[in-house]
Amino acid sequence: MTRAAVILLSGGLDSATVLAMAREQGFVCHALSFRYGQRHGVELQAARKVAEAIGTASHRIVDVDLRAFGGSALTDDGIAVPRGRDAAEMSEGIPVTYVPARNTLFLSYGLALAEVMNARSIFVGANAVDYSGYPDCRPEYLQAFETMANLATRMGVEAKGDDERVRIQAPIVSLSKADIIREGVRLGVDYSLTWSCYDPQPAKDGPRACGGCDSCQIRRKGFVDADVVDPTRYIST
Amino acid sequence: MTRAAVILLSGGLDSATVLAMAREQGFVCHALSFRYGQRHGVELQAARKVAEAIGTASHRIVDVDLRAFGGSALTDDGIAVPRGRDAAEMSEGIPVTYVPARNTLFLSYGLALAEVMNARSIFVGANAVDYSGYPDCRPEYLQAFETMANLATRMGVEAKGDDERVRIQAPIVSLSKADIIREGVRLGVDYSLTWSCYDPQPAKDGPRACGGCDSCQIRRKGFVDADVVDPTRYIST
Repeated sequence: MTRAAVILLSGGLDSATVLAMAREQGFVCHALSFRYGQRHGVELQAARKVAEAIGTASHRIVDVDLRAFGGSALTDDGIAVPRGRDAAEMSEGIPVTYVPARNTLFLSYGLALAEVMNARSIFVGANAVDYSGYPDCRPEYLQAFETMANLATRMGVEAKGDDERVRIQAPIVSLSKADIIREGVRLGVDYSLTWSCYDPQPAKDGPRACGGCDSCQIRRKGFVDADVVDPTRYIST
Repeated sequence: MTRAAVILLSGGLDSATVLAMAREQGFVCHALSFRYGQRHGVELQAARKVAEAIGTASHRIVDVDLRAFGGSALTDDGIAVPRGRDAAEMSEGIPVTYVPARNTLFLSYGLALAEVMNARSIFVGANAVDYSGYPDCRPEYLQAFETMANLATRMGVEAKGDDERVRIQAPIVSLSKADIIREGVRLGVDYSLTWSCYDPQPAKDGPRACGGCDSCQIRRKGFVDADVVDPTRYIST
């Protein structure tokens, strides 16, 4: 039996790896991306390339109007994206790049699509190691969402046995960035297609990664730690 | 201390009553409505009138693209809205008017707005009596959402004590339609402003309620049971 799954695909390194993992497990993958007013809209172009390269049965981009709400450096032009923070600073509290209820919203859209597609698995690239400051990247949160999802939906309520329950699959939640990259390399993920930077910089040959935001720093260090050549085009190296 | 609350306001009878209840409890109310491709878009006009009449600090209408997903008679033109079903039929299983993960999506937007507004209460007009077939109107679902919400958000994680926890408030979840109407009448809700019909019928003087869909039938019976004059303009009576 082929099993369908919904994959939340941001265009970043993490969710690209998760898509490749779901494909390896034999899932027919329906990718779901979000245009939520993020500064780094270039990541949606990355999502398209990644979906095509790894292979999905469908790919939807949904408009989510979070700008109207504000409250995050990723969606609010009035809040600056921090640069050049060290590891200690990054691990302190919840960063300004936290978008209120973002994963809850995205998983909810994933749940709606899963129900329509009769997919019982929703894959998400949440990671509690690098993003320890984001409450909605933690395993206890994901577990609570899964419990809620099974009470929320027709498929959850009518599920007969564990096989039919809704599952929030976060296969990289406890992996280091280096381990994620190693897994992706094993699966043939082309990381040059992915985009991580929160603060893209214009360049003649298209946007380049800033190299200094939290996300760039975590990505760079991941490639170094994994001993894999970093294919990212940074504005300066 | 004035407390802020987010109110999910559909324009229907239930959420109008809930808004009035939240106002009576002293909450500063931020109303949130959704344009989700529903056939009965006229309910958004009703939501505006209700918000104005009862009084809100703000009222946002968010676009939620559920039509791209399909799967419900309320958003998919290919699925007919049932008419003239009796109570036994209505109470059987999950109706085709169920919209996949709708309340989960709406509550997630409510949670995002609540976090930006620093509101700890999200009021929702969910009702498990009339809508026993909708999984996402049941108290156990709402409880699970609340648990998840407190793990999902900065305000939930940082809450000091019960007062600061996120609360999903569903004050009419166990009330009969007649009791809801009686409560609304006590609070001065003008039900002529509200809209319930799933299948609006064109008429010279603006859309009228069909009178036969589940929602119309439940509403009509509610006014009869409450012994209150029904101000709804039906296409035929």
